[in-house]
Amino acid sequence: MNLLLLSNSSSDAGYLVHALDWIRPLVPAPAAGPAVFVPFAGVTRTWDAYEALVAQAMAPLGCELRSLHRAADARAELARAALVIVGGGNTFNLLHHVRRLGLLEPLRARVRDHGLPYLGWSAGANLACPTIRTTNDMPIIDPAGFDALGLVPWQINAHYTDAHPPGHRGETRRQRLAEFCQVNPDTPVLGLPEGTGLRIEGAAASLLGHADAYLFRGQSAPQALPPGRLELPV
Amino acid sequence: MNLLLLSNSSSDAGYLVHALDWIRPLVPAPAAGPAVFVPFAGVTRTWDAYEALVAQAMAPLGCELRSLHRAADARAELARAALVIVGGGNTFNLLHHVRRLGLLEPLRARVRDHGLPYLGWSAGANLACPTIRTTNDMPIIDPAGFDALGLVPWQINAHYTDAHPPGHRGETRRQRLAEFCQVNPDTPVLGLPEGTGLRIEGAAASLLGHADAYLFRGQSAPQALPPGRLELPV
Repeated sequence: MNLLLLSNSSSDAGYLVHALDWIRPLVPAPAAGPAVFVPFAGVTRTWDAYEALVAQAMAPLGCELRSLHRAADARAELARAALVIVGGGNTFNLLHHVRRLGLLEPLRARVRDHGLPYLGWSAGANLACPTIRTTNDMPIIDPAGFDALGLVPWQINAHYTDAHPPGHRGETRRQRLAEFCQVNPDTPVLGLPEGTGLRIEGAAASLLGHADAYLFRGQSAPQALPPGRLELPV
Repeated sequence: MNLLLLSNSSSDAGYLVHALDWIRPLVPAPAAGPAVFVPFAGVTRTWDAYEALVAQAMAPLGCELRSLHRAADARAELARAALVIVGGGNTFNLLHHVRRLGLLEPLRARVRDHGLPYLGWSAGANLACPTIRTTNDMPIIDPAGFDALGLVPWQINAHYTDAHPPGHRGETRRQRLAEFCQVNPDTPVLGLPEGTGLRIEGAAASLLGHADAYLFRGQSAPQALPPGRLELPV
């Protein structure tokens, strides 16, 4: 497989700027086929506006985008894609629309079995996991099941932080993930801090960026994983 | 109806201490029937430990608790209850078990149609809403549908805050609720800050505590609602 799963899209440098060098190897030659954008995690921005934002961000890579929401036949569009880009936003909205359009299985097959490069950030990284059970998003719409693409055998928690606003009595992220691990003891979760990403090439996984990721599994204490090659099954 | 829906359980004063005076009017006379505790939002604490914690907190009110997880017949136990207490934790776990035990409809009927007093905090306040779509919790388990008790016609967002840890690129709470309102424009949401609660008596709703709540609806700017009688339909 050929995946790049980012914790986040924006930084002080601008939209996707921190990740452009990581994205470059996934960008297809123009003749290979279109780079297809999946905008369905977008809720408060329109899908047209989301497409324009990402198209502008990817322009330095010579990558031309076609957003799936404008395709007359989304499945046919996906079949032609030479790169699929799944943007962040609300994970429930993303899964709802991907499922509604019948794209879950064809997307899984093209990426897992036929090597279609997959770029996703935030909700788009969650979608690559077995389920969306480790999203931070509000369940604003019922996606009719939490199963997702299952491209990797573990979960991602994007925007990972253990910060806690003073006076707040709600759960910390670490507490939320401990709840996940209590109910799902056999599924590891990788907490990806802002500015980091996961590169999957074939069966090898590497952590990109300048911060440690954290591996949560069952009742074990979270394990810090430094950038570089990860000993995770893919 | 006779409801008390709290944003949170714990404060610097201790567990439920800030709310004891609000809870007092709901506590039944000992002969009226048991106060039944619903512990299913608890995930990382055992239900036995959760029952003990809440029993101790309620002891000053002369209220004896029976936790539903120890009942041989949960529906029969609920039918005898003179007060139902739904604790916080993970809303998905709570709804999953309430639905699994077939308690959603009987609980709704007893509270809505027969005046059973209902005390809930955090996830237990979410459960009183039409759906759990405004929970802050991680979807660690699929509850097989987001519909909840529907005791009130609007949504609650517990632990409401607009704080944002520095450097965090994820959504603020206000952004998350704006996403909810985009997808569900006809459903108002009441953001309840820490230390506040909602008292519903008959068709009258009041905000308890010392902070404003915030009403979110469609594309309107959030509206601050001061403590006291609320102009909300019940």
